[in-house]
Amino acid sequence: MAERMSLIVFSGTVDKLLAASILATGGAAMGLEVEIFLTTWGLEAFRKDAYKTNARISKDFEDYAPAMMEAMQAKHAPSWMENILSAREVGDVKIFACSMTMELFGITLADLEPIVNDVTGVASFVERAKEGRITLFI
Amino acid sequence: MAERMSLIVFSGTVDKLLAASILATGGAAMGLEVEIFLTTWGLEAFRKDAYKTNARISKDFEDYAPAMMEAMQAKHAPSWMENILSAREVGDVKIFACSMTMELFGITLADLEPIVNDVTGVASFVERAKEGRITLFI
Amino acid sequence: MAERMSLIVFSGTVDKLLAASILATGGAAMGLEVEIFLTTWGLEAFRKDAYKTNARISKDFEDYAPAMMEAMQAKHAPSWMENILSAREVGDVKIFACSMTMELFGITLADLEPIVNDVTGVASFVERAKEGRITLFI
Repeated sequence: MAERMSLIVFSGTVDKLLAASILATGGAAMGLEVEIFLTTWGLEAFRKDAYKTNARISKDFEDYAPAMMEAMQAKHAPSWMENILSAREVGDVKIFACSMTMELFGITLADLEPIVNDVTGVASFVERAKEGRITLFI
Repeated sequence: MAERMSLIVFSGTVDKLLAASILATGGAAMGLEVEIFLTTWGLEAFRKDAYKTNARISKDFEDYAPAMMEAMQAKHAPSWMENILSAREVGDVKIFACSMTMELFGITLADLEPIVNDVTGVASFVERAKEGRITLFI
Repeated sequence: MAERMSLIVFSGTVDKLLAASILATGGAAMGLEVEIFLTTWGLEAFRKDAYKTNARISKDFEDYAPAMMEAMQAKHAPSWMENILSAREVGDVKIFACSMTMELFGITLADLEPIVNDVTGVASFVERAKEGRITLFI
């Protein structure tokens, strides 16, 4: 069994990306190898510069969005992108884009943030995830 | 430990069902035993013929829905139901309906798509999932 | 490996809390140690007395909400809070509040339902979860 945590990031809302980035940070701090698989709306969130304007919050809790955004500014809480960058400095964090989503939406690696390491298929990702300790769908 | 991937399908939106079906396909291709547990809105999505008209996309990303539907048609991407049918041909995929949801919503096995294998309780499903390698909540 | 199931409860909608509580009950019945980590909207749902008025249902399925609420009343189905209380009587269930969410939203342990055992950081939670058998993000 590998000391690995695999995160399938399906959603692209700021609140879920924040949760994913904090899990990645926590995992990296614990010495886990962290592998992130970006699919569907999670991949859209990693399009070049998209994180700069993305202010989507889960519709289920959008009434809380202004309070959350204010609290983050007031406490100088790092953004999800800053968290991922920090996680990479602390530990072993790799980010993969789902090949099927790339093809469906006509996205190439050049369209994505440079933090994305590579493109991979779901079967390859699952094969590695199954050797790990934690796999989450976010 | 069993070479098993367990998917708890709670959501019934097309985008999440598509993700679940692609994970099932990937898992089956990798030789994993795939067990799907349909609960709450995920079970509603497997009511007889429901998949033919279900066009629900996560509300968080509904602005992308027309582009996604168009891309799927243009690329002749298989639907989530087609993916699950393919996964079953490739490997070992079983689909269980949550007994508690059945009772709550007054659903019988005859009301569901014939692809659903059986009804089971959450405790039995968890007992099998815990012996496996990956368990996801979708 | 520990006989442990870890649930990261991110969402605070009644339908997802119900699913989480039923998984906790099933896990406890199977003799699993259940650890629940409340973060973001999941933590908001455990604010004192919040469960008494929380009627949020996932927006993706809000058209089903009235039928679900009626069915629950008609069948005298226990609420998610009742399920968690039962799970605690049956087995080993611990509930932790995410320290980062507490800080961000200015919440103290005194603001939460007494059923919450303690405050913990994501890294500590992940460290325990990775020794377990099932970890879910809900």
